[in-house]
Amino acid sequence: MDKILYGTAYYYEYLPTDRLAKDIEMMKKAHLNIVRIGESTWGTYEKQSGVFDFSPLDKVLDAMGKAGISVIVGTPTYAIPTWLAREHPEIMVQQKEERLPYGARQIMDITSPAYLFYGERIIRKMLEHINEHPAIIGYQVDNETKSYGTSSSNVQAGFVKYIKKEFNNDIEKFNREFGLDYWSNRINSWEDFPSMDGTINGSLGTEFAKYQRQLVTDYLKWQVNIVNEYKKSKQFVTHNFDFEWRDYSYGIQPDVNHFDAAETLDFVGTDIYHPSQSKLTGTEISFAGDLIRSIKHKSYLVLETQAQAFKDRVPYPGQLRLSAYSHIASGANMIEYWHWHSTHNSFETYWKGILNHDSQSNPIYEEIQKTGSELENISSSLVNLNIHADVCILVSNQSLTAINWFPFSENKNYNDIFRRLYDPFYKLNIRTDISDENHIKPSDYKLIVVPSLYSVSDKVLEKLNDYVENGGHVIYMFKSGFTDEHVKVRTSIQPAIIEKTAGVHYELFVTPDDLDAKLKPSLEGPISSDDNLHLDDWMELLIPDSAKTLANYDHPVWKKYAAITENNYGKGQVVYIGCLPSENVINDLIKDQAEQLHLTNKNSPKYPIVVKTAKNIKNENLTFYLNYSDKKQILPSQISKVDIFTNQVGKNFESIPPWGVKIFKNKEKEV
Amino acid sequence: MDKILYGTAYYYEYLPTDRLAKDIEMMKKAHLNIVRIGESTWGTYEKQSGVFDFSPLDKVLDAMGKAGISVIVGTPTYAIPTWLAREHPEIMVQQKEERLPYGARQIMDITSPAYLFYGERIIRKMLEHINEHPAIIGYQVDNETKSYGTSSSNVQAGFVKYIKKEFNNDIEKFNREFGLDYWSNRINSWEDFPSMDGTINGSLGTEFAKYQRQLVTDYLKWQVNIVNEYKKSKQFVTHNFDFEWRDYSYGIQPDVNHFDAAETLDFVGTDIYHPSQSKLTGTEISFAGDLIRSIKHKSYLVLETQAQAFKDRVPYPGQLRLSAYSHIASGANMIEYWHWHSTHNSFETYWKGILNHDSQSNPIYEEIQKTGSELENISSSLVNLNIHADVCILVSNQSLTAINWFPFSENKNYNDIFRRLYDPFYKLNIRTDISDENHIKPSDYKLIVVPSLYSVSDKVLEKLNDYVENGGHVIYMFKSGFTDEHVKVRTSIQPAIIEKTAGVHYELFVTPDDLDAKLKPSLEGPISSDDNLHLDDWMELLIPDSAKTLANYDHPVWKKYAAITENNYGKGQVVYIGCLPSENVINDLIKDQAEQLHLTNKNSPKYPIVVKTAKNIKNENLTFYLNYSDKKQILPSQISKVDIFTNQVGKNFESIPPWGVKIFKNKEKEV
Amino acid sequence: MDKILYGTAYYYEYLPTDRLAKDIEMMKKAHLNIVRIGESTWGTYEKQSGVFDFSPLDKVLDAMGKAGISVIVGTPTYAIPTWLAREHPEIMVQQKEERLPYGARQIMDITSPAYLFYGERIIRKMLEHINEHPAIIGYQVDNETKSYGTSSSNVQAGFVKYIKKEFNNDIEKFNREFGLDYWSNRINSWEDFPSMDGTINGSLGTEFAKYQRQLVTDYLKWQVNIVNEYKKSKQFVTHNFDFEWRDYSYGIQPDVNHFDAAETLDFVGTDIYHPSQSKLTGTEISFAGDLIRSIKHKSYLVLETQAQAFKDRVPYPGQLRLSAYSHIASGANMIEYWHWHSTHNSFETYWKGILNHDSQSNPIYEEIQKTGSELENISSSLVNLNIHADVCILVSNQSLTAINWFPFSENKNYNDIFRRLYDPFYKLNIRTDISDENHIKPSDYKLIVVPSLYSVSDKVLEKLNDYVENGGHVIYMFKSGFTDEHVKVRTSIQPAIIEKTAGVHYELFVTPDDLDAKLKPSLEGPISSDDNLHLDDWMELLIPDSAKTLANYDHPVWKKYAAITENNYGKGQVVYIGCLPSENVINDLIKDQAEQLHLTNKNSPKYPIVVKTAKNIKNENLTFYLNYSDKKQILPSQISKVDIFTNQVGKNFESIPPWGVKIFKNKEKEV
Repeated sequence: MDKILYGTAYYYEYLPTDRLAKDIEMMKKAHLNIVRIGESTWGTYEKQSGVFDFSPLDKVLDAMGKAGISVIVGTPTYAIPTWLAREHPEIMVQQKEERLPYGARQIMDITSPAYLFYGERIIRKMLEHINEHPAIIGYQVDNETKSYGTSSSNVQAGFVKYIKKEFNNDIEKFNREFGLDYWSNRINSWEDFPSMDGTINGSLGTEFAKYQRQLVTDYLKWQVNIVNEYKKSKQFVTHNFDFEWRDYSYGIQPDVNHFDAAETLDFVGTDIYHPSQSKLTGTEISFAGDLIRSIKHKSYLVLETQAQAFKDRVPYPGQLRLSAYSHIASGANMIEYWHWHSTHNSFETYWKGILNHDSQSNPIYEEIQKTGSELENISSSLVNLNIHADVCILVSNQSLTAINWFPFSENKNYNDIFRRLYDPFYKLNIRTDISDENHIKPSDYKLIVVPSLYSVSDKVLEKLNDYVENGGHVIYMFKSGFTDEHVKVRTSIQPAIIEKTAGVHYELFVTPDDLDAKLKPSLEGPISSDDNLHLDDWMELLIPDSAKTLANYDHPVWKKYAAITENNYGKGQVVYIGCLPSENVINDLIKDQAEQLHLTNKNSPKYPIVVKTAKNIKNENLTFYLNYSDKKQILPSQISKVDIFTNQVGKNFESIPPWGVKIFKNKEKEV
Repeated sequence: MDKILYGTAYYYEYLPTDRLAKDIEMMKKAHLNIVRIGESTWGTYEKQSGVFDFSPLDKVLDAMGKAGISVIVGTPTYAIPTWLAREHPEIMVQQKEERLPYGARQIMDITSPAYLFYGERIIRKMLEHINEHPAIIGYQVDNETKSYGTSSSNVQAGFVKYIKKEFNNDIEKFNREFGLDYWSNRINSWEDFPSMDGTINGSLGTEFAKYQRQLVTDYLKWQVNIVNEYKKSKQFVTHNFDFEWRDYSYGIQPDVNHFDAAETLDFVGTDIYHPSQSKLTGTEISFAGDLIRSIKHKSYLVLETQAQAFKDRVPYPGQLRLSAYSHIASGANMIEYWHWHSTHNSFETYWKGILNHDSQSNPIYEEIQKTGSELENISSSLVNLNIHADVCILVSNQSLTAINWFPFSENKNYNDIFRRLYDPFYKLNIRTDISDENHIKPSDYKLIVVPSLYSVSDKVLEKLNDYVENGGHVIYMFKSGFTDEHVKVRTSIQPAIIEKTAGVHYELFVTPDDLDAKLKPSLEGPISSDDNLHLDDWMELLIPDSAKTLANYDHPVWKKYAAITENNYGKGQVVYIGCLPSENVINDLIKDQAEQLHLTNKNSPKYPIVVKTAKNIKNENLTFYLNYSDKKQILPSQISKVDIFTNQVGKNFESIPPWGVKIFKNKEKEV
Repeated sequence: MDKILYGTAYYYEYLPTDRLAKDIEMMKKAHLNIVRIGESTWGTYEKQSGVFDFSPLDKVLDAMGKAGISVIVGTPTYAIPTWLAREHPEIMVQQKEERLPYGARQIMDITSPAYLFYGERIIRKMLEHINEHPAIIGYQVDNETKSYGTSSSNVQAGFVKYIKKEFNNDIEKFNREFGLDYWSNRINSWEDFPSMDGTINGSLGTEFAKYQRQLVTDYLKWQVNIVNEYKKSKQFVTHNFDFEWRDYSYGIQPDVNHFDAAETLDFVGTDIYHPSQSKLTGTEISFAGDLIRSIKHKSYLVLETQAQAFKDRVPYPGQLRLSAYSHIASGANMIEYWHWHSTHNSFETYWKGILNHDSQSNPIYEEIQKTGSELENISSSLVNLNIHADVCILVSNQSLTAINWFPFSENKNYNDIFRRLYDPFYKLNIRTDISDENHIKPSDYKLIVVPSLYSVSDKVLEKLNDYVENGGHVIYMFKSGFTDEHVKVRTSIQPAIIEKTAGVHYELFVTPDDLDAKLKPSLEGPISSDDNLHLDDWMELLIPDSAKTLANYDHPVWKKYAAITENNYGKGQVVYIGCLPSENVINDLIKDQAEQLHLTNKNSPKYPIVVKTAKNIKNENLTFYLNYSDKKQILPSQISKVDIFTNQVGKNFESIPPWGVKIFKNKEKEV
C-alpha cells in the first residue's frame, strides 16, 4: 500500500434508483479513493440456487475502475438468500435447542455442510468472474464472523471429538481436570456426553466457548484458502474484525480469537464504532487500533467506521476529521465510512451514512470532502507508519469467558477491567501494544500490564515470572493466576505462581460492604489521589511477604490487609492490585511506572490533547496532536518542526482549535 | 335510541349462588336500564360439542325483560370452551412458532377454519334461540378482537397472496419497494417467502401488521353478517373497541383499524378505562370518546368502563358521577360499568365491579344509584347529542406500527406524541375530532393536527398541501412524511412533499446530548413558556426556507438551526415542530392557532374545569362544566342559562363542588 | 443424641488430590465430630447403569470411623448421572411444555417411573453395602427436594385424578367451586381437562401448587420407607429442608409443606443461610430454627449453614462463633458447615467452605477450631434443649401460593408479611413457635399471630374464633379469611367469619395513592411511633363494629376509616391490622400484647442483644446473650448465675464483646 485509502462501503444494490454515476461523481469530489462492495448481497447475485448474475458487481467495478476508485470485494456469505433457508432449513443456527428463523444476517450454522457447500460455490463463481478486474485491490472474507452460539448436534459431536483428542482419549483425566464428580456430572463413557446447552460446569462451558472460537478461526481459514486460489498478486485478503459491543466498540471480542483468526490474512481489517458528540474521547479508536495493529505489528485497515451513524452520534463539526487522523495515528492505512448512502428500507435505516436519504451534499459530506482533499496531499507522509510501544497489555479471551462464568461484579465484566487499565495509558499519552497470552513477546516491552488473567497455564505465568526476573515490570490485576487453563482453581497459595514475583499472597477475598470500603494509600507510595478512593465489587485481602504496601483497605474490619503492593524481584518489579481502583488511582500507578521506565516526556501535553508519535516511510518522526475537547488548546513549542498540512515551521504556543488536529514532522529526516 | 342507557355488564353464570332476583331488585333501585350479557360464556352454553343449553340466557332475558331492563347480548366467541381446545388443538393461536396453551381468553387463531366453523355454529344456534326476545335491543359481536399476533402457516400463506395481489404479481417491484436486496433478503420466487416470524425488514413487518389488522376487520365483518341474518328491526349490532393499554386506555389501538373495522356496525361501542383517585383528569374519557364518536360522527356506546376496578382506582366520592357525565359530554349514549358483581374465582377477582364480593350496598353502588336517578330525569336532554369540532387530529395505525419498528425514543411511542398534542386541546377546552389518513375530510375543519405521520402515501400529503393552499391550518410533528406507504424513506428533501407548504427543510436529525438541549423561543413568537423547555429524544435541525422561526435550539453546537417554524402558504398556514416540546409549549402554539382561528372563548374557564358544549335533540345548546379537582371552583355567569338538574336559572359566580358537574342549557330553544 | 454435633459437609469425590488423611487431621484439630457425605455423587458410585463402585464411600467411612468422626450419609438421588439422562431423556423435568436439558441438579421429574426405578436401585445398593458401618449415625434422604415445577402429562393425569377424588367425581360441584364458567373455562368432561400450563384460574393454579407439594411429601415418604428397611436401630433418617430463597433463607418454603413432608422423618434437618458482615442480625437463624423446631417440637439438625460462602458473606471475626451459638439457642443439636473445602471446578466455586482452595488453615478455620473446642467442653449443657414459647405464628403455604396469584403489592409477597411480623418478636426477645393451619394447637399458646391467612377453610377460622372466645389473643393481618380453601372469595361480610371476633368489617380496599397515606395512631392506643407511619400497597377501609380503633388512615379522602382495631371478645382479644404498617408500629402492638400477656421481662436487654432462654437436660435454666453488633454491650446483673464457658459466677455489669456470646445457667438445678 502506498497511500492512505479513504473511502466508504457502497451498496449499489440497495439504491432505490440508479445513482451510480452521480454517486461516483460525488465520491470523486470528496477525494475518496476506495470502496468496499459485495459483502451483503448474495441474494442479489444468486437469485435462485445455481443461477448467477454478477452484473450489478460488474457495473460497479467498471464504473469505479474508470473513475480510479479502488475496490475491495467482500465474499457475500454472512447473509444468506431466502431460497437457501427455504431449501435447507437445517442450516439455520441452533442456539440452545432453538433454530433461529430466517430474517437477519449471521443466523446460519457456520459448520453446516449445506451452508459450506453453497458458500463455497458462490465464492468460487464470484471470484472466477471478477478476479481479473483491475479495480480490485483486495478481498474481504465474510464479515464480522462469529459462531453465532451454534450448539447443533454436529457441533456437539465435534466438541466431544476435540475433548477426546485434547485428553488423548483419557476419560478419567478429563473428568478429574474438569471436576465432573461435582453434582454427579461425571462422563464415564463418551456416548454419555450431554449437550453443552445445559451445562453448569464453568470449566466445560469455557472450553466450549474456546471451541466455538476455534470454529470461527477454522471457518475464516477455509474462506481465505478458497480466495487465495483466485486472488492476483497485487490483491490482498482481509477480514473485518469487531469488538465487544456496548452500542459501540467497548473491549476485546469475546467470540473470536483475533490473534489466531488473523493468521492467514494479508491485512487485518476492523470496524471501530464509538460514542460521539460530547462523548467523543478517541479512546476506542486508540485501543481498537492498538489491538488490531499488534496482531501483525503492521498497518491495518479500518473497513468500517461511523459517518453520521445514529442520531446520538451525528458528529459535531470537526469531529469526523479528528477521528480520521486518530485512526491514522494508531496505524491505520485505510478509513472506510459505513456507509455511503443511508438505506431507505429494512433494518438499519437510522444508521446513517455519509449521505442522507436524499443523497444531497450535507455538512457531514462536506467535512469528509475537506479531509479527503487534505489526505490526498499528505498521504505519502502518513501511510505505513512505523509505530513503537514500550508497554503491552496482555489480554485473554479465555479469561474473559471464564470471568463471565464466575463474575466478580454484578455489572462489570473482563472488559471493564481492561478499559480501567487501558484508558489511563491513553490519557497519559503512553503508546501501548495489545497482545494475548499465546502471542506476546515479553522481551519487546519494558512494562506488561495484565488485566485479571484468570484462566491461564502454568507456563504463561512462569514466563511472566522469568520476564520480571530479567528486568521486566508487570502490573497485575486481581484474580490473575487463580485458575489453570481449564478453569480449575489452583490448589497452591494465591495469586498462584506469580506470588513468587509479586511477593504477596491472600487467603480471603470479600466484597466491600455497607460499611463503605475505600483505599488508604501509603504516604510514601505513588498514589496521590485523595478522592475517588471508593471500592466496589472485589477486595483480595493481601498479606505482603516481601512486597511493599502501596495502599491498604480503609475499612473497620479489613484495614490490616493490603490492597495494592509493589515488589522488586530479580531485576524487575511487580505491582499487584487486589481490587478495582478508580481510574485516578491507576493513573498514579502508571505515572510512577512511566517515570521509573522513562516512558513519557514530562513536558508533553495532557489529555484532552492526545499525542501520538510515529515514524513514516520517509523516516520522518511525526507527532500527532489531537484535541479531544470543544476548547482551543495550546501546544508546546514546535519551532524545530514542520506542520505537514501547511509545510510551515511550527511556532511557540502553537494553538489547536476545538476538535482540531495538528501533525508535525521533524525538520530534517533522520538517518 | 331515545334515552341514555345506564347499566352494567352482568355475568349471571359466574355467580356463586343464584342472586338474579336480588340483583335485579338492586339494579332497579339504582335506576339501571341496560345490561350486557353473554359474551364470555360459550363453555356454559355449549358444554360439549353440539350440545346447547341456553337456559341461563333465557332466565336472565326473561327476568330483565320483566323488570324493564334492556339487554345487549354478546356473541361468546372470544373465549373458547375446553372441549374445543381439546378436540382441535390446532386452533390455539401460534405466535412466533409457539402455540399458546389453553387457559386465557383471546388465544385462538381467528383465521382457523375449525374456530370459524364452531364459532359460526354457536352464534347461529344462540341467535335463532333468542333473537325474538323483546328484552334484546342489540348484539355485540365478539369482544376486544385482535389478531393475537397470529403467524400460523395459513396466515403466512394469506399474507403472501395479499402481497402478490397488491403488487399484481410483480415480484421485482415488490423487492424494490421493500428494499429486499438488503442483507440478502430478496425474495425471487414466491415459494421462498420466509415466515414473518424472523423478519428484520421494517417495511415488511409493518405491512404484515397491516395485514393482521385486516384480519380483524374481516373477522368482525364476517360476524356482523351472520348476526345481521337474525337481528330484528329494532335491534342493533355493535362491537367493543379498546385502546393501547398502559394499564388504562392510553392511545390509539395498534392492532385494530377502528375506522375500517367499524364499517358494518350500527353503533360503535368501546371500553374506556382510566386512572382515578388523585390521578383522575378525564383526558382518556375525552380522547377515546372523540375518536369513537368521529368514526361514524354520531353517538356511541360505552360498553365498559370502570366502577371500582383495582385498589388504586376505587373512585373518590363524586368521581363516578363526574365520569358518567364526562362520557355523555363526549357523545356517549350509553354507559355500562364493568361489571355488576365482583368475581369470586379465577383471574379478575380484584378487578372489582359495582358490588363487592359480598353483593351488599356500598358507597360505590350508592353513587351510581344517585347518578342513575338523575339520568332518568334528564335523559331526553342528553341523548343523541350533536357535537361539532373545528379541529381534527389525524392519527395513523400505519405510522404507529412503523414508528415501533423505527423508534424515535427509548421510552415513548407514537401514542406519546398523540397525547402530547391531544392533552393540551383537552385542557384548553377545544373540542377535537379524531380521524385517520384514509377517512378524514379536511374541508370539515379549520385546523388539522398531525402527530408524526411517518408512513403515508404521496396522495395524502398532497391532499394536506391542497388543504393548506385553500386556507387550512396544519400543525405537523417531526418525522411526518419521512417514508411512503411501504415505509420506504423518501429520496426527496425532508419533510418530504409537505416542505412545500411548511417552507422548511432539514438535512440532519440528532438526539439532545449531555450538553442539555432546550428550546429557545423567538421573542416575537407565540411561545411564552420559560420553563419546561428541555428537549428529549429527537431534534430535526430545521433550515427555514420561507418559514418563520418560532423557536431555535438552545444548544452550543446546533443553535443555528430552527426547532419550530410557521409558514403561510396559499390561504393557509403550517406549523412544523421538529422536536418533542413540553405540553406547555404545545399549549402556547395551540392558543395562538385558537386565536387566529377563533376556536375558543377567552372567557371560558380553564382546566381543571373542563367545558364541553353540544346541541341536544331539542335543539338546546348545552354547556357541561366538569370539575376535575378536589377544590370548589367558580364558574362564569350563567344568568342566561338553566341548570338542567334543578331547572333553575343560573347565577353569577355559580360554584361547582369538588369533582362536581354542572350542565346548563340556553333559556330559549334555538330555531 | 447426647452431644452437640459440629461438623461439615464433605465431598471427598470432588478433591483434586487425595487429601483425606490431611483433611481428617485438620477436622480433628478443629474438634469437628460429624460429616455429611454422599448426597451429590450418584455418578461417581454408579458410573454406568448397574455398575456400582462404593469404594470412595467406604474409604471415607473407614477413615472417619477410625478418627471417631460420625457420618450422615445422603442418598444421592437429587443429582442424576449423565448415563441416566442419556438413556432415559424422558426423566428430565418438563416445565410448561419445555424439558430441561441435562446439567444442573434437581432437573428430573420426581414422578417419572424411570427415575424412581433407578433411584430406588442406587439407594438399595448403597444402603445394603454400607448400613452396618459403625461410623454412620444417620441418613439424609435426597436434598432440598421440590417438584421442580413438573407439569408433564403424568403429573397432569395425576392431578385430574386427585381432583376427581377430592370432588367425589362431582364435576358440577368442581366447576362451581373453582368458578370455571368464567372466560368459558368450564370442564364438562374430565377428558377435556386442559393442561395446567396455561391456566389463568387462580383457584386451580393454587390447587395445582398444593398437588405439587403433595408430590414432594409422597416422594420423601417413599424414600424414607426404603431407607427404613436398611437403617439400624441407632441410625436416624432426616432430610434437608430449605426456605424461600432471596439469596438467603428469607421465609417459608413455597414449594414444600414442611409439616406434612417431615412426618416420617426421625429428625428434621434444614439448611439456613443468611446475610453476614454488617448485615448479620441472626433473624434468619431464629425464624428458620423456630419453624423447624416447631415441626416435631424437639431439637433439630442444621445440615448446612455457611462458613465463608460468597465474597459478600465472609464473616467478620466473631460472627461464625456467634452464629453457631445462635443455632443452639434456637434448639439445634447439630451445626454442619457447607462445606469443608472450596470446590475447584464447576458451579459453586465461589461458594466457599471452611477451607480455601489452597486447603490451608485460615482465619475462618481458626474461629471454627476455637468454637469446636468450646463446644466439646460444654456440649452436654447445650444438647436437647427444652424450649418453650407462648406465642405461635400461624403460617400457610396455601395462602402464600394464593397471594402469589393475587398479589397485594408489586414487590412484596406473603413472606414479606410474615417477616414484618416475625422480626419484631425476634428483636423484642419474645420466643415464638411457628406452625401451620393444619398442625397448630391453639391452646398451647397465649397469643397467635396470623400473617394474611388468605385461603383457608371455615373450620380453621372458626377454631380461631373459639380460641379467642376461650381467652386467646390473636393478631390478624389484612386479607385474612378473604377466600376459602379453594381460593373462592367468601360472599359474606369481610373479614369473613373472623369479623365475629374482630368486631370490625370493611367494604372497600384501596391502595395508598399520590396523596401519601399514613397511619394516624389513636392517642390512647399502644402505638407511640411517630415516624415511619407511611403506608404502601394495601389499605382495607375498616369500619369498627364493637372494636376499638388503634389507628385511622391519615388521608384526605379515607380518613374516616380505621386502619388497625382491637376487640375484646369472650375472654380473649383480637387485633386486626388492615394494612402493612412499619416494623415500628408492629413493635408497639406486640409490646402491648406482651405486657397484657406477661410475655417479657421488662428488664431484659434489647436488640442488638438477643436473649434466648431454655432448659437443658440437666434441668438447668440457660440464658443465651448474643451480641449482634460491632460494639461492646453491657448485660444486666448475672450474680445469681454461672457462665458456662468459664464456670464462674456472673457479675454486675457483665460485658459482652462485639459479635460476642455469653451463656449463663442458674446456680442451682431446678427440681
